[in-house]
Amino acid sequence: MNIKCNLKELINGLNVVSVATNTRTTMPILEGVLIEAYQDKLKLTTNNLELGCEHVLDCNIIKEGKTVVDIRMLNEIIRKIEDEIVEIIVEDNLFTLKSVNGIFKLTTMDANEYPKLPIFNVESTIELEQRVFKDMIKRTIFCVSNDENRPIYNGALVKVDDNILTIVAVDGFRLALRKNLSEKNINNFKAIIPGKVLNELLKILSDNEDSYVKIGVNKNQALFQIGQSVIISRIIEGEFLNYNSIIPENYETKVKVKTKNLLDSFERVALFAKENKEKDKKSPVKMQVGIDGIVLSCVSDTGDAKEVITSIVEGKDIEIGFNPRYVIEALKAIDDTEISIEFTTNISPVLIKPTINNDYIYVVLPIKLRQ
Amino acid sequence: MNIKCNLKELINGLNVVSVATNTRTTMPILEGVLIEAYQDKLKLTTNNLELGCEHVLDCNIIKEGKTVVDIRMLNEIIRKIEDEIVEIIVEDNLFTLKSVNGIFKLTTMDANEYPKLPIFNVESTIELEQRVFKDMIKRTIFCVSNDENRPIYNGALVKVDDNILTIVAVDGFRLALRKNLSEKNINNFKAIIPGKVLNELLKILSDNEDSYVKIGVNKNQALFQIGQSVIISRIIEGEFLNYNSIIPENYETKVKVKTKNLLDSFERVALFAKENKEKDKKSPVKMQVGIDGIVLSCVSDTGDAKEVITSIVEGKDIEIGFNPRYVIEALKAIDDTEISIEFTTNISPVLIKPTINNDYIYVVLPIKLRQ
Repeated sequence: MNIKCNLKELINGLNVVSVATNTRTTMPILEGVLIEAYQDKLKLTTNNLELGCEHVLDCNIIKEGKTVVDIRMLNEIIRKIEDEIVEIIVEDNLFTLKSVNGIFKLTTMDANEYPKLPIFNVESTIELEQRVFKDMIKRTIFCVSNDENRPIYNGALVKVDDNILTIVAVDGFRLALRKNLSEKNINNFKAIIPGKVLNELLKILSDNEDSYVKIGVNKNQALFQIGQSVIISRIIEGEFLNYNSIIPENYETKVKVKTKNLLDSFERVALFAKENKEKDKKSPVKMQVGIDGIVLSCVSDTGDAKEVITSIVEGKDIEIGFNPRYVIEALKAIDDTEISIEFTTNISPVLIKPTINNDYIYVVLPIKLRQ
Repeated sequence: MNIKCNLKELINGLNVVSVATNTRTTMPILEGVLIEAYQDKLKLTTNNLELGCEHVLDCNIIKEGKTVVDIRMLNEIIRKIEDEIVEIIVEDNLFTLKSVNGIFKLTTMDANEYPKLPIFNVESTIELEQRVFKDMIKRTIFCVSNDENRPIYNGALVKVDDNILTIVAVDGFRLALRKNLSEKNINNFKAIIPGKVLNELLKILSDNEDSYVKIGVNKNQALFQIGQSVIISRIIEGEFLNYNSIIPENYETKVKVKTKNLLDSFERVALFAKENKEKDKKSPVKMQVGIDGIVLSCVSDTGDAKEVITSIVEGKDIEIGFNPRYVIEALKAIDDTEISIEFTTNISPVLIKPTINNDYIYVVLPIKLRQ
């Protein structure tokens, strides 16, 4: 194999396929990247058996061929080179990278032993802007559970129904749901995508307008086509929670408040929540909703805090406790300037959503206040 | 105690005195900051028994007094407040901070139990620009030894001789020396300042022109006056290395090279130095100086690298091995665009210095190359 390619494109490609490498593997070949040079294209492939990734870039081929080299080492070298074009030669099990002033040689692994990506027959697909999909992931991923005893909640449900794409994540204490209407007619589908995979997608998805991602699913896998890259993920098997049943439909108390004001206050008052000497015994943050608007307070071993936040209150007064992290994470995920919070009782799920937009819903369980 | 003060100035002051707090102490009071309000000044004091720090800011005093509160918690709260002015009230062992919307209460400790800073009688002083002193520390501190068996080298020698201020650090493998001529007539002195203290000074010293630092010493302590802050450090006792004897005076080979070119090449080639499977057995980077200029190379278990760097060579050819970290750290510390490297034999100390400036000297021992 002997090729020349643009260094920046190679760096970008290796960056993308790095998402599917595995440094804690018993198969050394999975620490490598499969590099194939055929028909003026350089194809980079990685596979950590849970996630597979392919990226194709243009190159100038002098001699076709394929090889596997350690991706971490290759990544480190090319990131420190400043040339525009690099030359790669593979000969006698040695991978040689030539820059203007330097020659770097790496030992290779057998390309025929590299585990192939599964062949993927797409059953249903949807295409949408990358930045929209990225935003959908960002607003829900923090609710994906890390509890390995309930593997189904280690992923988020991605589904299409009536031309609406919805992502939902739940972890037993809260739920985040973000939806997006498609302009095209698309087939219904649903798949539970592992949280880890969504996290890796966040790194690749672009914020630019007019960059699209195509999502395809079949029974066992999901495929994401992002520019010149293809990511194939396993799907988590099982039946997702019937989440509609836990989204409150009515309320006794409703508050409208500026998102940033509430977030800032929560962050200050929450400083006291973690200050108890017994680590497990975090104080809840108390929220009192009434004539003054919202009053947040927290009492701990080392002191206490109290803040008043101007807000518009409708309905009954209520006094309710929160794990501040669960509220702070949601408020950080909401870009809208104003939110509404809907309460029924102080032991029932609380609904948080933007006042204008109806594409995002967050439901959180309160904590019982100590008397 | 009851005062009002500017929030930004309070944040800045707490930031400065944080350098002398101690979170791993058996004396809980050392986790606190002593706050004293007298005569329209607010004085913040910290003391971790190795290092003491004072900062004074203006404030509006309604009632004088003093107290001690947990500095970490106070720091976190005030950093999250956005008001211009805050009010502090201390009453019944409670420290209360009032912002526009919030009230934060912290338990206090007994101000009379806070260990006082030593009274400091300055014997000799020097004043210089903060940015110059900062640069002097930056260029030498990486050679301060961490080896606690030789405590004298856990600090850098700061001395004045013939109106020249010099900082020298050595660690057994290398030496860094930076000097600066004073325009005023000053007394000679010398003191070994702990590396940890120099590190903290780096955080406080400003890069602005016309900001000065005053350094004072006596037998046991050194004092640094930086704007409204005073830092008092212990001095390491003992006799520092007679370092002049290890700075080579002659050479057999001399190379002039662009600092950035050599640094970039060293960083690339050094990637291979750490790649041996046996962690302790790092490969040295080989430097060959001859007709081609400098050729750097490194052979490891997983591959090898070779680079050529254009340079001007004078004298004999030489082949010499380096621990790449020792060269990279020095090259990063040198701002000058061109350096000269002077060699005698491949087992003798090597001298690196800027070609134009003579205020910086770096000496490094080579590593024996395997045959």
